[in-house]
Amino acid sequence: MEIAELGEFGLIRRLTEDIKIENGSTIRGVGDDCAVLQYTGERRVLVTTDLLMEGVHFDLQYVPLEHLGYKSIMVNLSDVYAMNGTPRQVTVSLALSKRFRVEDVEALYRGMRLACERHHVDLVGGDTTSSLTGLAISVTAIGEARPRDIVYRDGARATDLICVSGNLGAAYMGLQLMEREKSVFNTQVEELRRQMAEAKRTNDEARLSALSTQLAQLDFQPDWSGREYLLERQLKPEARRDIVEALREAGIQPTAMMDISDGLSSELMHICTQSHTGCRVYEERIPLDYQTAVMAEELNMNVTTCALNGGEDYELLFTVPLTMNERVSQLEDVKVIGYITEPQLGCALITRDGQEFELKAQGWNPLKRGQDGER
Amino acid sequence: MEIAELGEFGLIRRLTEDIKIENGSTIRGVGDDCAVLQYTGERRVLVTTDLLMEGVHFDLQYVPLEHLGYKSIMVNLSDVYAMNGTPRQVTVSLALSKRFRVEDVEALYRGMRLACERHHVDLVGGDTTSSLTGLAISVTAIGEARPRDIVYRDGARATDLICVSGNLGAAYMGLQLMEREKSVFNTQVEELRRQMAEAKRTNDEARLSALSTQLAQLDFQPDWSGREYLLERQLKPEARRDIVEALREAGIQPTAMMDISDGLSSELMHICTQSHTGCRVYEERIPLDYQTAVMAEELNMNVTTCALNGGEDYELLFTVPLTMNERVSQLEDVKVIGYITEPQLGCALITRDGQEFELKAQGWNPLKRGQDGER
Repeated sequence: MEIAELGEFGLIRRLTEDIKIENGSTIRGVGDDCAVLQYTGERRVLVTTDLLMEGVHFDLQYVPLEHLGYKSIMVNLSDVYAMNGTPRQVTVSLALSKRFRVEDVEALYRGMRLACERHHVDLVGGDTTSSLTGLAISVTAIGEARPRDIVYRDGARATDLICVSGNLGAAYMGLQLMEREKSVFNTQVEELRRQMAEAKRTNDEARLSALSTQLAQLDFQPDWSGREYLLERQLKPEARRDIVEALREAGIQPTAMMDISDGLSSELMHICTQSHTGCRVYEERIPLDYQTAVMAEELNMNVTTCALNGGEDYELLFTVPLTMNERVSQLEDVKVIGYITEPQLGCALITRDGQEFELKAQGWNPLKRGQDGER
Repeated sequence: MEIAELGEFGLIRRLTEDIKIENGSTIRGVGDDCAVLQYTGERRVLVTTDLLMEGVHFDLQYVPLEHLGYKSIMVNLSDVYAMNGTPRQVTVSLALSKRFRVEDVEALYRGMRLACERHHVDLVGGDTTSSLTGLAISVTAIGEARPRDIVYRDGARATDLICVSGNLGAAYMGLQLMEREKSVFNTQVEELRRQMAEAKRTNDEARLSALSTQLAQLDFQPDWSGREYLLERQLKPEARRDIVEALREAGIQPTAMMDISDGLSSELMHICTQSHTGCRVYEERIPLDYQTAVMAEELNMNVTTCALNGGEDYELLFTVPLTMNERVSQLEDVKVIGYITEPQLGCALITRDGQEFELKAQGWNPLKRGQDGER
């Protein structure tokens, strides 16, 4: 169905008519100039926002819209958890070009709503507009936290332990895998087109018709078997609410925390810069999945570099006082990877053979995919 | 300066380093995963968001970036005022293509910060990313209000008076004017290019050189004299905080309110649909500026149609109980334009000669400029 058939208000109605409100703090959701939220004086309000652009943050040739919707919500919830808060509401703004159909927008919303439901978050408003070129998605998440629970980036102190949840580099490897498969597919398409041009030139009607059928039947469905984990990490990341809850249950209050969206190296630099400290991270302690290592080997890439700079892992990076060593070591899916130092020692990686390499924040490359700056 | 020279973090630092925090409710602004806000239990939190896309919502050929920044904030503040709230914080996300330079982004931010300062609003965070094509701007505004002060769209009741602030249609006329001047300018450019091609064909080097100089010196600076008001209404709209304050001082609590971003007709339909009422609006009561009327005449357009459907006025449309007639009539820059009816009477405009015309909400046209749907 063309979006123009439904009309703007029809589209919005269709997208929002059966949205359930889960939180008592949501006084009014979709349907007015603003959403209205209510928090008691005991709670602080957290707000975070992300803007995702087609061609920069996602490639619709291999990213299903439902997954894209899921991920666009998840990356914002991840920011609220990274403050040790609980996300409660999101707003969603979309800019759609004419090639998008109602079914496309519904698929996108299905993913968004699934992400919201899983994290008990209300979708309370937004904006739907048009775009001359691609799809743009802007999500704002609002959450709450008790003042004493909030964890900033600037609280790390020398001797604190540096911890990460899950494993790193898999989302980046998933991206590499999809880019490779896309390139293989596009080569097939080009080859068929070349042969068709040749058949046309020689007036070989039968061959032209056969090739044309072949092209029409060509489908981008590579065999991902054995690589599902990498794809899932790239397409459908999960915000680590479980880690935030586990820390709370274990009575561990991190001194600094953030989520890993741009890569471990860049995020460590953020924490150290804002906390006025240095750090030491052990290469051998960086958690990696088996599939990440295999894929890096296959692509002839250094797996540590992928883990340090890959990005989009949406794991939590946090520091805890040294006295918490025992408690934090008992947490499932959390690993101590190093420690915070005095600032004059700088930030360094200690390799398997004991050498020290200075950690560097990635430079900004406006064309590099997925590089964006939360503030 | 190229943005790549500064680097992402450099750009963000440069844009945000001297941002002042004005509100006690802003616990933490730019620089972490989320902004942290604090409201007492007496206050509700309002959130609104808008996504502006180059080529759809603005044309950088005639919109200066500073004005664009100002407007992108203002349209969001307008939504908070339309709830009878007070805006306190904004977040700003930008997607920039490679053609934007640091100076461009600074100009955009200058406008944003001026808008924030004028309305005592804090810029507390956002996201800066890249775009393959144009500029995308996503703004989220957060405000507060006492529960009993909040005005929704659904509170209008039969016999209520319908009021608007300021005048309507001027922003739309400003747009028409700029589009016309742009078209004149582009025709000049094309004509010069045509003559240059001709000179090239005839090997007339001297003429080619003269034409080339002429083209380089051609500047889009039309003479706007006498039309400044229309341009200002289009380029630099002002959210009507003064009206909200005047209503409060006069002890008038509107029964329904919203801002006029898509045109009076469309907004009236929103209020009537959500309030389950009809309405009657008098053509002769719709406030128009002299320049709007002159420009409409010049362009051979019906000025009432422009006022009804033009959009981007960012005036306030509100309803008050009939008993407030005297009080509301004494307010400066507010005009009563009609009244709310029972739903079965429908929504209609009463023309100068007493005829009734049914009001219609505009359909959604993904290519029509400036049509977007707040929820």
